[in-house]
Amino acid sequence: MSDLRPIGMFDSGMGGLTVVKELFASMPGERLVYLGDTARYPYGGRSDETIRAFGLEDARFLLSMDIKMLIVACNTVSSVALDDIQRECNEIPVIGVVAPGARAAVSRTASKKVGVIGTLATIRTQSYQKAIAALDGGIKTYGKACPLFVPLVEEGLADSDITRLTAQHYLYELVNYGIDCLILGCTHYPLLMEAIQSTVGANVQLLDSAYWTAKEAKDILIAMEQRNPEKEDGKDKSRFFVTDRTEEFQRTASIFLGSPVANLEKMNLEQLTGIL
Amino acid sequence: MSDLRPIGMFDSGMGGLTVVKELFASMPGERLVYLGDTARYPYGGRSDETIRAFGLEDARFLLSMDIKMLIVACNTVSSVALDDIQRECNEIPVIGVVAPGARAAVSRTASKKVGVIGTLATIRTQSYQKAIAALDGGIKTYGKACPLFVPLVEEGLADSDITRLTAQHYLYELVNYGIDCLILGCTHYPLLMEAIQSTVGANVQLLDSAYWTAKEAKDILIAMEQRNPEKEDGKDKSRFFVTDRTEEFQRTASIFLGSPVANLEKMNLEQLTGIL
Repeated sequence: MSDLRPIGMFDSGMGGLTVVKELFASMPGERLVYLGDTARYPYGGRSDETIRAFGLEDARFLLSMDIKMLIVACNTVSSVALDDIQRECNEIPVIGVVAPGARAAVSRTASKKVGVIGTLATIRTQSYQKAIAALDGGIKTYGKACPLFVPLVEEGLADSDITRLTAQHYLYELVNYGIDCLILGCTHYPLLMEAIQSTVGANVQLLDSAYWTAKEAKDILIAMEQRNPEKEDGKDKSRFFVTDRTEEFQRTASIFLGSPVANLEKMNLEQLTGIL
Repeated sequence: MSDLRPIGMFDSGMGGLTVVKELFASMPGERLVYLGDTARYPYGGRSDETIRAFGLEDARFLLSMDIKMLIVACNTVSSVALDDIQRECNEIPVIGVVAPGARAAVSRTASKKVGVIGTLATIRTQSYQKAIAALDGGIKTYGKACPLFVPLVEEGLADSDITRLTAQHYLYELVNYGIDCLILGCTHYPLLMEAIQSTVGANVQLLDSAYWTAKEAKDILIAMEQRNPEKEDGKDKSRFFVTDRTEEFQRTASIFLGSPVANLEKMNLEQLTGIL
């Protein structure tokens, strides 16, 4: 059994490309339809109500593209509105990035103390905290919002003294709590891996939610016998949509994926918000 | 002669509150209708096309409120779409924040070398550069985009080593060019005045576009005999609208204006985008 339909994935912007990278690394033959809502990016500082409205618009667009699975590659939307999106998409599996990261932390922590870093909305909703508590009530979770990390990545300053100083500012508390796992609860953060690791020390394991999400997607497709039998070229056969200019997306794709994407289209925001 | 109608003002978010502050400081009796598009904030990294569309929606909403003047308190929209907005509002004066700052620089520079800092869009469009060249072709203008400054202000880190290091990163080139005036081409930047001044040195004059914009608004109202004769209470009689949650706006208003605003309403984005 196989299923040639594409996997749908969206993010508020370009951060989801870290999930795309992991997905192609483990399933190079799968095709994607990716939406980055770059005209309204970033979602991380907005209210639950606004995040929910934007997330549902993104999901409805992808549902209109005949997808076999939906990946919400945005920690903010996964934290705030995954239930709403799952209700909307009741015929296909919907995966967020929170649950896979939470499960990885639960299976790995020995000290039973886990740190989570993310956007304001991801931390405010305590989504990782709740997901971890549901799996193991004995684990203590410490969250910290790090709003400067995304602009630092986008400024190309990942390897700079500014980033190292900012990492110390955000992370020193978490280290003092005695955590042994730190969930990178934002798709941009894997690009800051070095600065974060050197700040928290080698004894703290960094868990990249992009990696664990791609792994979960693969496990589900195998279990449902819905893998695409192709062995390669998934990336070139995938379609990418953004709601603002394409140049910046391609620049970021080059950094995240190693090269620009073949099929990239700009869509108007009216097209997106008109899908009801 | 007098005119009791309010002044309309919009910004992509909350930064315009620095212009509000200067306006009430010089005309405490004027009433405002302020719109902050916090659901789609920030505009500074978006394409010209998207910035124009959002700016026109903001302007149309305010035009529907019977205003006597429109102030585009957003450097990004002033840089990209002021002409389009002026065409839309041909019965009332429309003021952006770029021209007042440019005029102040032209009248003050002795070295004929002016620096401008702002968002990616403000610098990309070279709006200050063009406005200054139109006034005095002999002046050389040097622009530098500083995308980390806004999140640093919003993180409450204006007075921190991270901000001082970031200021050095962005500004060392400008200092080397020998500028004697530096235009703060973003409404958030006045809150970084100290870090910026100590980086560029006491010989460089910082020009706050919020201050010069409020001054221009006053000059025009006096010239057109459209001042509100009231002497006070303008702030309490003003109306403020945001497209996302009100709590953060009030927190920022407390920082920028010294206290929360009396009349603040959240409007839905559909209301804004439905005005055609």
